[in-house]
Amino acid sequence: MTIEPKIPYKIYLSEDEMPKNYYNVRADMKKKPAPLLNPGTLEPMTAEELGGVFCDELVQQELNNTDQLIPIPQDIRDFYKMYRPSPLVRAYCLEEKLGTPAKIYYKFEGNNTSGSHKLNSAIAQAYYAKKQGLKGVTTETGAGQWGTALSMACAYLDLDCKVYMVKVSYEQKPFRREVMRTYGASVTPSPSETTTVGRKILAEHPGTTGSLGCAISEAVETATSTEGYRYVLGSVLSQVLLHQSIIGQETMAAMDKYNIDPDIIIGCAGGGSNLGGLISPFMGRKLRGENDYRFIAVEPKSCPSLTRGQYVYDFCDTGKVCPLAKMYTLGSGFIPSPNHAGGLRYHGMSSIVSELYDEGLIEARSYEQTEVFEAAEEFARCEGILPAPESSHAIKAAIDEALKCKENGEEKTIVFGLTGTGYFDMVAYQQYNDKTMSDYIPTDDEIRDSLSGVPQFPGNETK
Amino acid sequence: MTIEPKIPYKIYLSEDEMPKNYYNVRADMKKKPAPLLNPGTLEPMTAEELGGVFCDELVQQELNNTDQLIPIPQDIRDFYKMYRPSPLVRAYCLEEKLGTPAKIYYKFEGNNTSGSHKLNSAIAQAYYAKKQGLKGVTTETGAGQWGTALSMACAYLDLDCKVYMVKVSYEQKPFRREVMRTYGASVTPSPSETTTVGRKILAEHPGTTGSLGCAISEAVETATSTEGYRYVLGSVLSQVLLHQSIIGQETMAAMDKYNIDPDIIIGCAGGGSNLGGLISPFMGRKLRGENDYRFIAVEPKSCPSLTRGQYVYDFCDTGKVCPLAKMYTLGSGFIPSPNHAGGLRYHGMSSIVSELYDEGLIEARSYEQTEVFEAAEEFARCEGILPAPESSHAIKAAIDEALKCKENGEEKTIVFGLTGTGYFDMVAYQQYNDKTMSDYIPTDDEIRDSLSGVPQFPGNETK
Repeated sequence: MTIEPKIPYKIYLSEDEMPKNYYNVRADMKKKPAPLLNPGTLEPMTAEELGGVFCDELVQQELNNTDQLIPIPQDIRDFYKMYRPSPLVRAYCLEEKLGTPAKIYYKFEGNNTSGSHKLNSAIAQAYYAKKQGLKGVTTETGAGQWGTALSMACAYLDLDCKVYMVKVSYEQKPFRREVMRTYGASVTPSPSETTTVGRKILAEHPGTTGSLGCAISEAVETATSTEGYRYVLGSVLSQVLLHQSIIGQETMAAMDKYNIDPDIIIGCAGGGSNLGGLISPFMGRKLRGENDYRFIAVEPKSCPSLTRGQYVYDFCDTGKVCPLAKMYTLGSGFIPSPNHAGGLRYHGMSSIVSELYDEGLIEARSYEQTEVFEAAEEFARCEGILPAPESSHAIKAAIDEALKCKENGEEKTIVFGLTGTGYFDMVAYQQYNDKTMSDYIPTDDEIRDSLSGVPQFPGNETK
Repeated sequence: MTIEPKIPYKIYLSEDEMPKNYYNVRADMKKKPAPLLNPGTLEPMTAEELGGVFCDELVQQELNNTDQLIPIPQDIRDFYKMYRPSPLVRAYCLEEKLGTPAKIYYKFEGNNTSGSHKLNSAIAQAYYAKKQGLKGVTTETGAGQWGTALSMACAYLDLDCKVYMVKVSYEQKPFRREVMRTYGASVTPSPSETTTVGRKILAEHPGTTGSLGCAISEAVETATSTEGYRYVLGSVLSQVLLHQSIIGQETMAAMDKYNIDPDIIIGCAGGGSNLGGLISPFMGRKLRGENDYRFIAVEPKSCPSLTRGQYVYDFCDTGKVCPLAKMYTLGSGFIPSPNHAGGLRYHGMSSIVSELYDEGLIEARSYEQTEVFEAAEEFARCEGILPAPESSHAIKAAIDEALKCKENGEEKTIVFGLTGTGYFDMVAYQQYNDKTMSDYIPTDDEIRDSLSGVPQFPGNETK
């Protein structure tokens, strides 16, 4: 019997212990994620084609299914040192409150001004754009976390930054916009009149509050039609999961340091960047047969791509200007109700996460908004941190699993990703406090209708 | 010659290295801060008199001029472990941007949901209230940081919490209010109709946007007229500086660990809690003749108590219900312009800081709001963190000192307190971004008028 060392409230790695490599889970996947397809030819996108939209080095990362470890450039590691390593926190107070024998940990990514894990990929993408000599980048943002993160990275590297912000978030979160402006970014509510695709969407849906899919289309159009610009994306893409593997790498290093062996690893899932990043190196161990873990993806019932979508080729964006990706999707025309977990309002899911889920290596579940905020409040009151609505989906699942442990007397170790803070989500918290928050679950008909808009691309026969 | 060990970007103490004692600077002061006086008898307040307003153990701390170290109870230390130690950050990027040979450090207290150092004293005060078996506590809040901190501490200890929030902040920062509500506190804009003193102030100044002084009066009245309640205060009092010495204790331990010897220590000063807490143990070394440091207090030009006030006995609150304190004051009737650095809008200053300043042991300077935001933006863009307006006063002074070092080729070590984040100050940032922010400097006549309202208490003859 080994005696467990005393676990501190927060485990910090030293700077020397910080990961020097991203971990690329695709290298260990027997069945690789399906390639992106050119929507015109329906052939896999080549590096050359992708290079019109993305920076060259990011294209290489996007297509890299073979290298297990990809070195993190020194400049990025220096930037990481400004806000990383993030703490792995033992939720002693939550455990006590729940009266559970389970041991609960969370990897807290909110201790930076972007308020979330998004900064991990923002600095990497901005770095490669700068290295390529570009003038600037364009992007979309939902809840505003990604846009803020990219603004911060671009300010640091002196790169121009144009952000299309989903209109519902732009209106509900004017303060996010001001943070981005403080970091020197220009912010446009989407859909907008500044792009062809934006004008088209506005003409068809005059009252729309927008979606991530719309905003992506506008940002891509602007990047490809402006000299010296490329498009960058905060989630979904394999390159983003690669950068976010820093979360999992740090978590694993911290757990190994204290001989902690997790049973269950939980993450909220919108586009899949946080979940994919957190679980990647653990999934690697599972895929290599070195260890076993349960992985749980948590999504909102209002936008249930994994739990109610289909695994087919679909457009990544509403405007259909992007490559096709094979993923769990609700159809690129799906516009979710104005749920406040803005970062989880995406119709699709990372190809990597989708493939792993399809192979049964990941479980998925969904929750309603009000029960998620109930968990958020309980967590905030005992652990101190006011969580982002997105992250609170993972909290809810972790609490449910811990209560199951209590019922069954099981001493499981649960780790979840606390992706960010809710400081810019107070409109939603106010609705919860005032008991005016509502839930919305799309009907089967609505989802069937939306999915019926997905074309019969090759491989979609099962749809 | 000793070789300086490589300084990481962030120095974290381990949990074992965290301070076990508060440091009480009064023990090392040859001339003690002047005692609080009973406004009726003009005699020093007794423990019994203070016990009607404050918890018993806090009264003992308030009156304790002799014990150098006061043990931190284990329960408080456990709470501290949830968000402390706070990092001592080396501002490598800012140094590079400024091209200065100076070495700049900041002690960052913003990595918790209250967004500032205020939580350090909130948990201590709530703990002693709970220990005394009280039902709840009342308080005032300016920018909302203290109220949020107290709400968090009370939620953790299951204690009722009533907050009077300065009306201008209540209106400008509705989201702060929602954070407090999420933690279960009740929040009332001040002045309000719920107290005698509030009704009186409203009758005399119908359009007032309030002040910390008004809000204190209301909170004290509510505490003293409600069974099982006591009043707690986020700054000014000696007990608060004692709790905030955790900042200085950690800073000193981190610096000692890496053999860093600071030349200049800078803090923003509203009521004095952050400045006093940060400098206390260093001041102790200076008072004991062990080392020398320059200490700089930074305040807004709109509320310049140290740089333009007088060192006399005055009321701590507008309503004149509190004991008298000898302090640098602008007069308790001084209502500053609605400057956005809400936490620095107090007419007076901690008695400890006032005495040290009067003895020439601390320097003071003041800045206009717009130059402070300019420094804030510069800092945010290279160091990543979006600072609170209050903290940005210290940033501005640190940058000025670092630029002086550049001019003179001096390799000084500067450390400043980065007390909090500006996430709830985006209205102010928006004004700065839109170039609609204005400065206000009170005229000599205005200050003379305000000071003329201070009664001729004993010892005020120099006024």
